[in-house]
Amino acid sequence: MQPFAFKLKHTDGAARLGELRTPHGLVDTPAFMPVGTQGAVKALRHEDVERLGAQIILGNTYHLFLRPGDELIARRGGLHKFIGWDRPILTDSGGYQVFSLAARRVITEDGARFQSHLDGSPHLLTPEAAVDIQSRLGSDIAMVLDECLAYPATRDTAAESMHRSIRWARRCRDQLLRLRTPAGAIATNGGQAQFGIVQGGVFQDLRDESADATVAIDFEGYAIGGLSVGEPIDVMSSVVGDTARRLPEDRPRYLMGTGTPEDLVECVARGIDMFDCVLPTRNARNGQLFTSEGRLNIKNARYAEDDRPLDERCSCYTCRHHSRAYLRHLYMAGEMTAGTLNTLHNLSYYLDTMKRIREAILFNAFEKFRLEFQRRADRLSLES
Amino acid sequence: MQPFAFKLKHTDGAARLGELRTPHGLVDTPAFMPVGTQGAVKALRHEDVERLGAQIILGNTYHLFLRPGDELIARRGGLHKFIGWDRPILTDSGGYQVFSLAARRVITEDGARFQSHLDGSPHLLTPEAAVDIQSRLGSDIAMVLDECLAYPATRDTAAESMHRSIRWARRCRDQLLRLRTPAGAIATNGGQAQFGIVQGGVFQDLRDESADATVAIDFEGYAIGGLSVGEPIDVMSSVVGDTARRLPEDRPRYLMGTGTPEDLVECVARGIDMFDCVLPTRNARNGQLFTSEGRLNIKNARYAEDDRPLDERCSCYTCRHHSRAYLRHLYMAGEMTAGTLNTLHNLSYYLDTMKRIREAILFNAFEKFRLEFQRRADRLSLES
Repeated sequence: MQPFAFKLKHTDGAARLGELRTPHGLVDTPAFMPVGTQGAVKALRHEDVERLGAQIILGNTYHLFLRPGDELIARRGGLHKFIGWDRPILTDSGGYQVFSLAARRVITEDGARFQSHLDGSPHLLTPEAAVDIQSRLGSDIAMVLDECLAYPATRDTAAESMHRSIRWARRCRDQLLRLRTPAGAIATNGGQAQFGIVQGGVFQDLRDESADATVAIDFEGYAIGGLSVGEPIDVMSSVVGDTARRLPEDRPRYLMGTGTPEDLVECVARGIDMFDCVLPTRNARNGQLFTSEGRLNIKNARYAEDDRPLDERCSCYTCRHHSRAYLRHLYMAGEMTAGTLNTLHNLSYYLDTMKRIREAILFNAFEKFRLEFQRRADRLSLES
Repeated sequence: MQPFAFKLKHTDGAARLGELRTPHGLVDTPAFMPVGTQGAVKALRHEDVERLGAQIILGNTYHLFLRPGDELIARRGGLHKFIGWDRPILTDSGGYQVFSLAARRVITEDGARFQSHLDGSPHLLTPEAAVDIQSRLGSDIAMVLDECLAYPATRDTAAESMHRSIRWARRCRDQLLRLRTPAGAIATNGGQAQFGIVQGGVFQDLRDESADATVAIDFEGYAIGGLSVGEPIDVMSSVVGDTARRLPEDRPRYLMGTGTPEDLVECVARGIDMFDCVLPTRNARNGQLFTSEGRLNIKNARYAEDDRPLDERCSCYTCRHHSRAYLRHLYMAGEMTAGTLNTLHNLSYYLDTMKRIREAILFNAFEKFRLEFQRRADRLSLES
């Protein structure tokens, strides 16, 4: 089996072209990971996601742990086999949803006690449990359990939380190292990698401390968590840039839960290799489409007799076959097919943008690409 | 443009193998038409429907008339262009939904007055309007407006309603013939055919009278309406058989709104060429699957750890890629993808059954096929 590896192939300024090798294959970076919360990218089937060119998807541990359960998935041979997706999968730790979805959560040093949002059943998610669950899921990349800080937070709260996240990260790593021993018996994916997560809110000295401590533990990759939670865009950009610089060159860098297409371009410019976000899929189901001419809300009456495709520069199935008028009709009529066609388009736009980013880096033209991309975005936001 | 034509190629007992030629291509009969109520087969996109082998879909005039409107569709170039489907389409007259969905309907000799189930807006659907609307939609096969009888109905009610349906059928035909003159200007499909509908409830003498009068008007094809509305299965079979026998050999025969796979086989045995039904698509979205081993309700806990495909004899995308365990999980988790995967399977089962029916007729083995099909169905219903 191919063990996990990251190869940095080329840089252009701070932007990086690389590849992840995982037990389930290769991922070109910078990469966007479509979110497949419950084992499916919403409104699509796997062949769609593959055809769109996605090389990796994300699964949410919290959801899968509650339903159908990590033990059941392990008995089916792991998440890949269970869902019938044989490319790479990254799982989060479950922490984010415990903080955002679950009821009556109580955080102690031990872990997070919470009640299921589905049936109120009580659970305890410790750092060790988060590792065990992801080990049963058998994802290619597992994430450590971290504490998710609300925004805004005081410096003291951010510092306390960050320190706890570091202690949890240590426990997570120790647990994985135990599982990797012959006695540990990793459930379904012996080549599973584990990423640490840098926290510290918007305070750069805390971010620096978190980065150094997390790197000292030594993970296969590093994520930046706790951003895209409401802070101003320039604050995010600056934290991302300063934090990425502090991370080791030879490990992949993953910015969690971000963002708009413009965010992706800016963060690649600051050295990020991996992204995930529900924006393209969730907005698609709400009728908001990303296009090369800006965002478009398909509900708008102006599209009722518009025979053009969503985006004349797009070659996705939706744009090749259907007009805005038809897509608006399907949306207004509440047809599920609207969600599917819109999701195909939005993910195509995101994945195509990542492809253009990778090509621009390869040709040492990323800064030019970035300026043109942002200039167009600024012009379009002025027009709208 | 290819004008409408029906060719009877081969018979095996009362079962018929034929082909419809329409302005948008060929349909092998006996044919099952997936229902695309609002211009999309629910949960699928057109490429799916094509890949499943459907040669024709059905559109509902009532729904399309109310939203987005037949005028808007005509301005887009007709239903085929608007929805991006270039194979044959049959539209119903809108009558059935006026009787089943609309509010405050009042039927007079003139037509059906009703309020939209969407916004309460008042409308009048006359026989002439039903023809005009379908002419604007530009379907390949249009249906006459008929009165839909509730079941059970007395003989007097059935007779009165049937006589009105005949008068309406005459008006529908006259209106279409006017539209076909140079001054009439059929909106979007000059080769549109029109089918009459035989009514008469469960009273065979009324059915005979209706068939004779409808055939006297001279349509391109004939439908049997007002069945599958709650009458016993043997009553339906007998009405279908006796009515089909009375229809001209050289015209296609369409049994509206039927039925289970077993119904299709029985009615082909009685001389039916075309079917439509929401059963495979609607049941799929409710988790009920048709398989060669009987029906299967995916919600059932017994499938939670079942790694087998829905149907080991099926080669659809769903059965090739996914287990019952995964499909149950998606369904329980409320994922839209469940509706899509289940619909792919059920439609595949229906269309595959039709294909097997056509082959059996071709090889003069239809009676053997029918007996084996029904024997298996009986055995499975005893087991369950």
